[in-house]
Amino acid sequence: MPLSEFDLIERYFARQTPSQNVDIGIGDDCAVVTPPPGSSLAITTDTLIEGVHFPVNTAPADIAIKTLAVNFSDLAAMGARPHWVTLSLTMPDNDEIWLDEFAAALHDMLGQFECALVGGDTTRGPLSITLQAIGLIKAGRVMRRDLARPGDRIYVTGTIGDAAIALAVLDRPVAERDWFLQRLHRPSPRVGFGIDAAEFCVCAIDISDGLAADLAHVIQSSGVGAVVHLPQIPLSAQAKSYFDAAGGIDWQQLVTGGDDYELLLTVPERHEPALLALADEHQMQVTCIGEVTSEAKMKLLLCDGTELPLDHKGYRHF
Amino acid sequence: MPLSEFDLIERYFARQTPSQNVDIGIGDDCAVVTPPPGSSLAITTDTLIEGVHFPVNTAPADIAIKTLAVNFSDLAAMGARPHWVTLSLTMPDNDEIWLDEFAAALHDMLGQFECALVGGDTTRGPLSITLQAIGLIKAGRVMRRDLARPGDRIYVTGTIGDAAIALAVLDRPVAERDWFLQRLHRPSPRVGFGIDAAEFCVCAIDISDGLAADLAHVIQSSGVGAVVHLPQIPLSAQAKSYFDAAGGIDWQQLVTGGDDYELLLTVPERHEPALLALADEHQMQVTCIGEVTSEAKMKLLLCDGTELPLDHKGYRHF
Repeated sequence: MPLSEFDLIERYFARQTPSQNVDIGIGDDCAVVTPPPGSSLAITTDTLIEGVHFPVNTAPADIAIKTLAVNFSDLAAMGARPHWVTLSLTMPDNDEIWLDEFAAALHDMLGQFECALVGGDTTRGPLSITLQAIGLIKAGRVMRRDLARPGDRIYVTGTIGDAAIALAVLDRPVAERDWFLQRLHRPSPRVGFGIDAAEFCVCAIDISDGLAADLAHVIQSSGVGAVVHLPQIPLSAQAKSYFDAAGGIDWQQLVTGGDDYELLLTVPERHEPALLALADEHQMQVTCIGEVTSEAKMKLLLCDGTELPLDHKGYRHF
Repeated sequence: MPLSEFDLIERYFARQTPSQNVDIGIGDDCAVVTPPPGSSLAITTDTLIEGVHFPVNTAPADIAIKTLAVNFSDLAAMGARPHWVTLSLTMPDNDEIWLDEFAAALHDMLGQFECALVGGDTTRGPLSITLQAIGLIKAGRVMRRDLARPGDRIYVTGTIGDAAIALAVLDRPVAERDWFLQRLHRPSPRVGFGIDAAEFCVCAIDISDGLAADLAHVIQSSGVGAVVHLPQIPLSAQAKSYFDAAGGIDWQQLVTGGDDYELLLTVPERHEPALLALADEHQMQVTCIGEVTSEAKMKLLLCDGTELPLDHKGYRHF
């Protein structure tokens, strides 16, 4: 006999999490949690659909990790610490092997981030996962996307473009293919770094839609412009080799490819030493790729100083 | 040119809601909200899928209202007041007429409940809506499903079974068909009543999976049993006429049909006067349908005192 929705939730998702201020967890009409005094909540939600956000037949553990990562990355971009998540899982049938792998990876990553799964919903339909994450922020310590100021330096964490290369080589046996796929399927949300950066940074966004699109969000909402020096964009050794073999860097792919889940921060020059010290402390690569300008325009400059024309400004779901 | 995801969110969903402690609304990586001191949060999420939770071609306004109602009903069952929601909308294309109607009904109902839409996500795929709602509870004033005690009287709000009749008559021209459909598509979450009931009630659930299934949740999690006197179950005048014309009440349909979104509360005898006074104040019908017992078993008694055998214990999504 197939598992009922109630049995399924009980077996795979209702684990006791006495920590994280959870008064009532999974099993009632709602979860009840009590935030510590003086905290604000950062709330985000993302839906991942098979065939749109991840390829058909992606491993269930990869799907669990990516679903958490994209939401935690949003929290990281605000400087929030993940506390509670709810999960809505729609699947064509209750495949217990799939569920075992999905739930194990989900609980494992939640444990790493000391975050509690407090509620959810399971329904039958084409595979789709909606996760909602709530993080806590100390009052007044939030990073926003609309506070970039002319003169700020534009920094990114990690390396850019690996996930876009993974998508391009899905069906091709290129060198380091598995490494690229790991970057696509199991991104590392920059949570700890984001929380600490919020102590002195006021403007950040996570790079999910593509470097150009996300920087465009920042400058449009801040009413400023930006110059990006394309050759300064940090590439992984694997991406460098890939582009070398391909005859050169595909700048369009690099700036429009999504799914990096790195952070982009704009910082006034006086905060650069603090940012670099923080990066050192977290053993996190950070790279200055340009500057915020007062002219409300984004310029992407090639080595020779000419401007890269953009085919489209990033990844669009519609 | 079709709307991008960003344009779509901007046009249909990003309305300013300066109330409800919203520091940052739609438009950043996360929403940021600050709960008032001394409050706990009730968190719930529900997914509605076309063809599973509502018929294909249901009016977009009905879908918006039902999506909010099922989540608010969960909040009502805990005694929580809706404050913030996030919406994940998956749709096959960005049909602007559909979106106009959906968004208008959504914002209208949010306004009635003074609740803010603070975030969301739109993706392309088969029509499906996941809403997550966060409500506020005064510390210590929460109703749970695991606190029923032997001797408690079992009460329900409103009338039972109208939504199940609606599903049964979807394609049949019966009397009052539109009224039944209204009950199915536009349930009234008992929010105000639930908040006030939490002042003295400790045990409640909302009736979403069916009276028998939801009562089973209560007694199983409370470690008790229940006797329900079936003829005491409150029927609408329309349901009475429907069953009269059908040759009698279909008890199976009545106790297993879902989607009522009424509240079921168990109250010790000493609190009955307060409950009845509250019902009077809210002009809410409440009806005693049975008692909680110490024997861990649910008995559904017909007029002649014999027990109704259950075919299945309610509505199951898998």
